[in-house]
Amino acid sequence: MKKRGQTLFFDKPPRIQGAAAVAGPKEGLGPFGPDFDKVHQDVRAGENSFERGERRMFLEAAALAMQKAGVTDREVDFLLAGDLLNQIISSGFVARELSIPYFGLYGACSTFGEIVALGTVLVDAGFADTVLGITGSHNCGAERQYRYPTEYGVQRPATAQWTATGAGAVVLGLEGDILVRAVTVGKVHDLGIKNPFNMGTAMAPAAADTIYSHFQDSGLEPKQVDLIATGDLGTVGREVNIALLERQGLDISDRYIDCGVMMYYSHQQVEAGASGCACSAIVTIAHLFKRLRQGDLRRILVVPTGALHSPTSYLQGDSIPCIAQAILFETTKGGETKWGHT
Amino acid sequence: MKKRGQTLFFDKPPRIQGAAAVAGPKEGLGPFGPDFDKVHQDVRAGENSFERGERRMFLEAAALAMQKAGVTDREVDFLLAGDLLNQIISSGFVARELSIPYFGLYGACSTFGEIVALGTVLVDAGFADTVLGITGSHNCGAERQYRYPTEYGVQRPATAQWTATGAGAVVLGLEGDILVRAVTVGKVHDLGIKNPFNMGTAMAPAAADTIYSHFQDSGLEPKQVDLIATGDLGTVGREVNIALLERQGLDISDRYIDCGVMMYYSHQQVEAGASGCACSAIVTIAHLFKRLRQGDLRRILVVPTGALHSPTSYLQGDSIPCIAQAILFETTKGGETKWGHT
Repeated sequence: MKKRGQTLFFDKPPRIQGAAAVAGPKEGLGPFGPDFDKVHQDVRAGENSFERGERRMFLEAAALAMQKAGVTDREVDFLLAGDLLNQIISSGFVARELSIPYFGLYGACSTFGEIVALGTVLVDAGFADTVLGITGSHNCGAERQYRYPTEYGVQRPATAQWTATGAGAVVLGLEGDILVRAVTVGKVHDLGIKNPFNMGTAMAPAAADTIYSHFQDSGLEPKQVDLIATGDLGTVGREVNIALLERQGLDISDRYIDCGVMMYYSHQQVEAGASGCACSAIVTIAHLFKRLRQGDLRRILVVPTGALHSPTSYLQGDSIPCIAQAILFETTKGGETKWGHT
Repeated sequence: MKKRGQTLFFDKPPRIQGAAAVAGPKEGLGPFGPDFDKVHQDVRAGENSFERGERRMFLEAAALAMQKAGVTDREVDFLLAGDLLNQIISSGFVARELSIPYFGLYGACSTFGEIVALGTVLVDAGFADTVLGITGSHNCGAERQYRYPTEYGVQRPATAQWTATGAGAVVLGLEGDILVRAVTVGKVHDLGIKNPFNMGTAMAPAAADTIYSHFQDSGLEPKQVDLIATGDLGTVGREVNIALLERQGLDISDRYIDCGVMMYYSHQQVEAGASGCACSAIVTIAHLFKRLRQGDLRRILVVPTGALHSPTSYLQGDSIPCIAQAILFETTKGGETKWGHT
């Protein structure tokens, strides 16, 4: 079976051949600080602008991921990348530096899911042996773009989230001990929320729908997955997601985390938690992949979430369309995981 | 053979099951006016903003393409869409309206090529029976975003191009008389041009490289293709492209057009020609597909081109990274085309 509903299944699953996470200073001081491959003390990563700093982190994550995967850029068939900046300009410049045939993707903070989904399709279908995926975000670049002029000072309500600074890269290929077993492609949901300081609530319906669809399509039950991790719903959206799924008869609360909730310590003052393309990417790569490799987790569902609005659509009075993509990762450690599929 | 170099080959090629082009008033007065499925007399398409007008054109093109393909939105497996507006917001809203599992793509004005490339991969690999692809652009929305404040009045040099207003949609599936035989995925090139009023010259090296790679990978010669159509190099970039390919020993001049050159009559005052995501999409759909169906053309190489810069990167002194994707379309009219592949 290759597809049921919104979900794609991979019989000979493509693998995470290498992955790396680079983080900014604030992220380095959080709980996953020791797990990141590199932590910058300088928020500009030694460059002269936030935007160029973001670009540098992308390139560093890419180089580290390829090194771990044992491939050079000349051996990579395709680059899939996306980011939050207008015209996904970080990705465009990274594609220029790496000179790999390129597809630019945009799913806001869900971009990591989109990259893994389409990268896996290219490898599984035999169109590529090796795909490099990169995404990330920068707090200051995003603030400048979404909430300029930041110099005025912005009061952050309790539902606000903090765009994470960092970059995550994965090499999808034929070797490695983490498999991409299935992918559920999300639909866009919009319940009419217009407040860009409450994106967790805006995104929760998209997350709930994609998670529900994943279990419907796969025939799995939540107890057959060790952990479900949404991207960046934060403390507020997390509760909404749990409540929405409960109404549908799906209780995930005993095995559910949100990367945005986990990225920082509570004393780091980020209100409802982290957001940004970097959020689900670097938590998955640095923390969740480590736990899969340790055998602590065997099968996880990672659900990057994205708010697709633009500053212009917000100013024009439009609400926030949202999406979530779900990726089912499994480790090969300890033998083949029983699918449990009927 | 599934892949050689940067090029993907489809043995049982997915087909254009339906396609439609919607255009703005200025485009309707150009040479392809009679070929568009719908021409709006109102540049806002009856909406209260340029951005909402763009969105309406996307939805109209999608509805017409699905109608021609004989499918409803419930029967479409995936939506692939992208546009020029920040956060590809037109595509996000269209995905919300259509409620089809969604991948957002960004390749600037090359997005039509990226959509057809990845949509074809999904169908060919058996992950989808039907994929809907949509892209487009709006002159006034793009001017506001890239050259705001437009009220100051901008002197347009002779190398400037005019962002086309319109939307093109394709349904990729298993039926239809136009095949997608091969796709060449472009690399990002940047020769250091920083002038956003000379994007044709900036994009020409990317176009030349993708076209050269296509012929290298496929083993075809230019004479085995009836027409080569770049996306929006305009009168200036077109000449640069011809010259660059000549240096590589490839003479395409007797079968080469540029969609941007052809979109408007010379008296329509667009300086070097058209640009925008709509440009290659609606010229291909309204004009080139018609000629394939008439049997006037049998095999064409369409090469949408994109300048990936952002207004921020321009203000920060960065140059313009560019890309081109190539799609080899064939008609089934008059029997199977001889591949000519060694």
